[in-house]
Amino acid sequence: MKIAVIGGGSTYTPELLDGLIKKAALLNLSVVSLMDIDRERLDIVAGFCQRMVKSASATFSVESTTQRKIALQGADFVLTQVRVGGQSGRHKDIQLGLRHGLVGQETTGVGGFAKALRTIPVILQLCREIEQYCPDAWLINFTNPSGLVTEAIIKHGRARAMGLCNIPLNLRIDVAKFLNVDPDRVELDYLGLNHLSWVRRIMLDGKDVLPQALEKLTGAGRPANIPEELDYPEAFIKALGMIPSSYLRYYYLTRKAVAELSARPQSRAEEVLEIERQLLNDFANPQLCEKPAALEKRGGAYYSRAAIELIQAIHADKGETHVVNVKNNGAIACLPNDCVVEVPARVDAAGAHPQTVEPPPPEIRGLLQHVKAYEELAVEAALTRSRRLAVLALVTHPLIGDAELADVLVDEITDQHGIEFEDVAR
Amino acid sequence: MKIAVIGGGSTYTPELLDGLIKKAALLNLSVVSLMDIDRERLDIVAGFCQRMVKSASATFSVESTTQRKIALQGADFVLTQVRVGGQSGRHKDIQLGLRHGLVGQETTGVGGFAKALRTIPVILQLCREIEQYCPDAWLINFTNPSGLVTEAIIKHGRARAMGLCNIPLNLRIDVAKFLNVDPDRVELDYLGLNHLSWVRRIMLDGKDVLPQALEKLTGAGRPANIPEELDYPEAFIKALGMIPSSYLRYYYLTRKAVAELSARPQSRAEEVLEIERQLLNDFANPQLCEKPAALEKRGGAYYSRAAIELIQAIHADKGETHVVNVKNNGAIACLPNDCVVEVPARVDAAGAHPQTVEPPPPEIRGLLQHVKAYEELAVEAALTRSRRLAVLALVTHPLIGDAELADVLVDEITDQHGIEFEDVAR
Amino acid sequence: MKIAVIGGGSTYTPELLDGLIKKAALLNLSVVSLMDIDRERLDIVAGFCQRMVKSASATFSVESTTQRKIALQGADFVLTQVRVGGQSGRHKDIQLGLRHGLVGQETTGVGGFAKALRTIPVILQLCREIEQYCPDAWLINFTNPSGLVTEAIIKHGRARAMGLCNIPLNLRIDVAKFLNVDPDRVELDYLGLNHLSWVRRIMLDGKDVLPQALEKLTGAGRPANIPEELDYPEAFIKALGMIPSSYLRYYYLTRKAVAELSARPQSRAEEVLEIERQLLNDFANPQLCEKPAALEKRGGAYYSRAAIELIQAIHADKGETHVVNVKNNGAIACLPNDCVVEVPARVDAAGAHPQTVEPPPPEIRGLLQHVKAYEELAVEAALTRSRRLAVLALVTHPLIGDAELADVLVDEITDQHGIEFEDVAR
Amino acid sequence: MKIAVIGGGSTYTPELLDGLIKKAALLNLSVVSLMDIDRERLDIVAGFCQRMVKSASATFSVESTTQRKIALQGADFVLTQVRVGGQSGRHKDIQLGLRHGLVGQETTGVGGFAKALRTIPVILQLCREIEQYCPDAWLINFTNPSGLVTEAIIKHGRARAMGLCNIPLNLRIDVAKFLNVDPDRVELDYLGLNHLSWVRRIMLDGKDVLPQALEKLTGAGRPANIPEELDYPEAFIKALGMIPSSYLRYYYLTRKAVAELSARPQSRAEEVLEIERQLLNDFANPQLCEKPAALEKRGGAYYSRAAIELIQAIHADKGETHVVNVKNNGAIACLPNDCVVEVPARVDAAGAHPQTVEPPPPEIRGLLQHVKAYEELAVEAALTRSRRLAVLALVTHPLIGDAELADVLVDEITDQHGIEFEDVAR
Repeated sequence: MKIAVIGGGSTYTPELLDGLIKKAALLNLSVVSLMDIDRERLDIVAGFCQRMVKSASATFSVESTTQRKIALQGADFVLTQVRVGGQSGRHKDIQLGLRHGLVGQETTGVGGFAKALRTIPVILQLCREIEQYCPDAWLINFTNPSGLVTEAIIKHGRARAMGLCNIPLNLRIDVAKFLNVDPDRVELDYLGLNHLSWVRRIMLDGKDVLPQALEKLTGAGRPANIPEELDYPEAFIKALGMIPSSYLRYYYLTRKAVAELSARPQSRAEEVLEIERQLLNDFANPQLCEKPAALEKRGGAYYSRAAIELIQAIHADKGETHVVNVKNNGAIACLPNDCVVEVPARVDAAGAHPQTVEPPPPEIRGLLQHVKAYEELAVEAALTRSRRLAVLALVTHPLIGDAELADVLVDEITDQHGIEFEDVAR
Repeated sequence: MKIAVIGGGSTYTPELLDGLIKKAALLNLSVVSLMDIDRERLDIVAGFCQRMVKSASATFSVESTTQRKIALQGADFVLTQVRVGGQSGRHKDIQLGLRHGLVGQETTGVGGFAKALRTIPVILQLCREIEQYCPDAWLINFTNPSGLVTEAIIKHGRARAMGLCNIPLNLRIDVAKFLNVDPDRVELDYLGLNHLSWVRRIMLDGKDVLPQALEKLTGAGRPANIPEELDYPEAFIKALGMIPSSYLRYYYLTRKAVAELSARPQSRAEEVLEIERQLLNDFANPQLCEKPAALEKRGGAYYSRAAIELIQAIHADKGETHVVNVKNNGAIACLPNDCVVEVPARVDAAGAHPQTVEPPPPEIRGLLQHVKAYEELAVEAALTRSRRLAVLALVTHPLIGDAELADVLVDEITDQHGIEFEDVAR
Repeated sequence: MKIAVIGGGSTYTPELLDGLIKKAALLNLSVVSLMDIDRERLDIVAGFCQRMVKSASATFSVESTTQRKIALQGADFVLTQVRVGGQSGRHKDIQLGLRHGLVGQETTGVGGFAKALRTIPVILQLCREIEQYCPDAWLINFTNPSGLVTEAIIKHGRARAMGLCNIPLNLRIDVAKFLNVDPDRVELDYLGLNHLSWVRRIMLDGKDVLPQALEKLTGAGRPANIPEELDYPEAFIKALGMIPSSYLRYYYLTRKAVAELSARPQSRAEEVLEIERQLLNDFANPQLCEKPAALEKRGGAYYSRAAIELIQAIHADKGETHVVNVKNNGAIACLPNDCVVEVPARVDAAGAHPQTVEPPPPEIRGLLQHVKAYEELAVEAALTRSRRLAVLALVTHPLIGDAELADVLVDEITDQHGIEFEDVAR
Repeated sequence: MKIAVIGGGSTYTPELLDGLIKKAALLNLSVVSLMDIDRERLDIVAGFCQRMVKSASATFSVESTTQRKIALQGADFVLTQVRVGGQSGRHKDIQLGLRHGLVGQETTGVGGFAKALRTIPVILQLCREIEQYCPDAWLINFTNPSGLVTEAIIKHGRARAMGLCNIPLNLRIDVAKFLNVDPDRVELDYLGLNHLSWVRRIMLDGKDVLPQALEKLTGAGRPANIPEELDYPEAFIKALGMIPSSYLRYYYLTRKAVAELSARPQSRAEEVLEIERQLLNDFANPQLCEKPAALEKRGGAYYSRAAIELIQAIHADKGETHVVNVKNNGAIACLPNDCVVEVPARVDAAGAHPQTVEPPPPEIRGLLQHVKAYEELAVEAALTRSRRLAVLALVTHPLIGDAELADVLVDEITDQHGIEFEDVAR
């Protein structure tokens, strides 16, 4: 098996390699090809990864290249972890929101929109090259905004693809910790879009313990280890009767979130830049053969685990259930059949087959439908670079809405992010 | 024919009577029964209306009563123009929003929510009495928030009912004025919810002139008489390619609208209080037999015309098209079948039969679906007085969203508006 | 105004002209252009029509041509009344069914399928020519199978089009006669597909009298003048609680209908051939200037009236309600949005805007959905001439279903009707 | 764990016990309680089962009772394998169809309808008793017509239930045999209703080999071991491009099937009666401790395996995929959300979570929707015993349709099967 990692110079990569080393035999892995446009970073990361493999006596090889074609040739799986525009682009995205009193964030709101505009054309170009060099490969997209990017892929590029995010796995583990139980005993009744998802039941050994979890959050006995997902006004979380995933804070606690983001001395992009500088320094150390502890600060917990379990499920035709981004086909009945949703799906060699969920109640249905309408427009705007669609997309985002603001934001995306639009009709 | 007017002491009533006098013969009208709980106002208004009828030599009688039973007995049509809580309640609703940086308004946002909580139980009680005293009567609801109230009626009270608003007629007349053509030559391709509607085509003698209307709004030659519906950033209105009805300003220009509302020296409620004081003073003048010019300031332009045309269409089984609030049944395909929408409908003796509309594009679909989800919850909250549903309704409103804010707003509705909730589960 | 009549040599044409003469002034009619490929028939029919016009002192002219281009040039309305394959094709269609114990009929079942295969390509070619010679014209399709042909037009050819059938008007008049009331007082709550439709309410002056109509059909007092639509086993018609339109006999009384059709000494095609021979003989008589009584035997009662009322409604932007074949868009919620249905629609200069209907109950929903699935396949088969789709279409017809039979029927359509298929994949 | 088997006197029961003995340890099984109203049969079957258990040194006990209450008390799983009316009722059902030239069969067509009328009230009564005596138990319905019965249970009785049929497993094994591969390597892309299902892809080690399977069926090299599911006219099966499950023969080859059924010297009911007589004779033999070879003639192959795998998946919260009858919720987008469908579902301790399937193409969509409409009516008719609904149900069945016939059939169900109807309105 050959795995191509597009954006292989990422500082995440050693985390991924760590996981692949453990599963190499099961996966029958022979080559991991790291591709990146940044030769310098790539050399450091690939060199470290090669030492990791060697030190672990794993039998697969790690290659590196700046040419996509070489990485893709003969690949069975293609993983995307690119960041078009880098951390400096991310910093701009964050500032773009905060400057206008909006959430400043790389996936939610106007920041995610700007990132999608930069990223989608690159990923669709990648899809065309996959078609040429490894048409049977599975594309596992981990590139943010993962929901938007996967919708673009599925609608315009490639059916053999699914989108992955570490949020569902994180959430399961966080909830299990809060309940003091082994995560393997816990199953979540999960539904939504990427970074806009809810848990309707927490199945512990097949019994729903969500009511108990909510109970535990109320009154005097409230423990200290409340995960962010549950840290809401008591009246609200009881009224909702579900567990919102962490990014829903930007919707449900917008005012607080904007205040917190604005108050940070450094943006997350600036923090990550520093972390990456340190990590690359570590990776460059020829003595280092195991992933350093500092890697945990990088974020993306469980990404490696989630990705490798998914590859395994496809490779071994396992029929396991994973929460992935996949074509809806009625799984969430109130959303279009052809859009991409994030739900539990049976994953086997034929792909991801989403499970249906009970029709969502109005308190989440409205937000889901509104954000999905925004996503449709955002994908179309990224494809066409139509200024009109860009304005409509932002007006349709529930955290923006305002037409004057949308107009200004589109101008700033051009002026400061260098993304040009055409004034074509739809 | 007998028409019962619930809330007949309203200062609107003479406007309505003016219209009825002109159409009395066509309608075969014999009695108009004005019912109000405010005896003093009712006497003034009814007295004036009786003088109007007499002066015009119309042959129907105007009765007045403080008992609903008497007004309803034998009625063919029941018109509701009640304002539960009066202008002081309205003032509180406005302040409730503005205090939190939200739109302060009697139908849109939290103000409309508070008004719905007060109003829906009263209207549903009226429905039960109609069932008892005049089961075959048609209920024409003009009480705001008209969409929410009509949805409550249709879902929980009465099928022989439709909701009416003067916005669709106003919009047609405004657009015709802007185009310098006779309104009778203009037909609008109109869709949405009450106070959340769009025009997709302006048919002038059967040809769509919306593109020309948009053209006229652009560049140097922009005329002065731009109706509020079209007064948007050029880039936005061209991108949208539709005409939003006036209340959409609260969504599309939220920041500006909140600033404007906050800057007003008096709230609209306070203004209306003064206008009404003056009007009642005028009406009380035993010499006055025709509606005074000052009545125009009262707002509600064309309400009388819209209501009477609708009554006529039903009474004479005319099969005319009117824009009304009616059960959806697939007319707007992306909304639930059983909800209430505001669309053109064929109106005859059997009721209102909505026309289908082309499936809405995402730029309006998302907002429509989000607001409708809020409306479902708001109706349920008004029926059950469940605090949980009240919180969920406000969190689901696209202009609110924030959970902490929703929680505070519900508290203020109790503390300052005196509306009690129960903490029942759904 | 210019009206082009494609298939103008039809013996129906004088009926149409008779109507046009009466409405010529209202329509501002200047030219009727009759086009037909049969020069001889065309000359007879056009000559007679010209004498009719002259005798009535109408001011429009009647032209005749064998070239579609000439008829279409400058036309405002295009009426199609072609019969591809003529009465001999119809006779073959009838025999095709009866030979296999199936309904033998020109629109329902395998006969309608064969006719659709012949007709749809011709009509789509006409659409392309309309685009070229009179792109703003309205196409009024009266060519059978009207539902299938209109679906092909709307999906693949032309939006400015609607399908017309005389059944809805006939049914209204029949029901009124049965109730001994003026048809103008009656309005039907009508829904379905062409030749597969039901009436759910009979509104007489705005009150539903369907229960009384059903009552009248029961027990000893059953009158003699029962229209075919109501002539069913009492238990069934009461259970259904609706009035099926006449072609539903082929579904609801299949066994009887096949027996009756088989027992006829002549097929309807053979009868019509004789009637037409006689009519053309009459029309050729240079003394004849008014439509002969024998024209009534030709069938198609009220076709002229229905067509002219529709033209008028569009021309004068009347906004009247007519039952037409039109794009569904949610009007019948259980059918695809993009299919063609037969429902009441508001007709004005912008076209036909269907009214929504209450979601159909299962007893009619299942048959509606099944036949619509057949229609989708039949249209696709006619467009592609794919043998595979032809087999699937017939297997999907509820009156056929059997795969061996479908296979044989497709062979016979090739062998005996000369329609070739290709064995292409879908 | 306690398993209650309702209809435990069935000759299938030893097959089931044989499976349970093998899995007893895994299931932690302590008691199997066989309940039947036929004391004599029950004693024979239970006695034999007890000897089987003893001979295998299994550690669970087998109890027998004629009281449902005793069997249900404390049960974790309830299996239904009742046959209301016995084989003589089945024989009548078969004759009922054949007498009128219809399919005579215990699940498809009028025979299945009569069986549903007898069976549904009994099963719903059982649901009420489960609620009382073992409210947490899972009900696994194996009673035919399994789709109708499960729809009745889910809509009117019990959410903790699923319907099971051996067809999906049989079909997988048959297809694997035809392809000469191990069934465990094969996964079917399966969808439909019980006894009305299709396979759209045959995944062999994760690759779709359905095209090869179809290829193998064509031309000279056609092998002998063609399973019934694939034994269709070549043109049809290639056009369909799917594999119909065996009961679809009654729809796709109706004429042939009716001829074959009519030509049988004995009905299947009569055959089974003889087989059962022989089997009971064998079971009564006190020396017999293992299931006799003759049991295979009884039919229901793999029932035991399917049932036990399902119980295991629930019990051990396995998250395996099984094809079961389950509430749709959008899995098949063209069917109502609340109906029961037969699709692959993830099965765990929380129940069965259906996977979505690609929206069905028209060639199967129409039949699916038509039969589902019949099923809705049939369930309602069984619940209400309304004669009107019974007539409508049969008219809505695609293999019946004829209203006169439906009327006669309902009379015969009363006269010959003793099922009384009321003439209530809906």
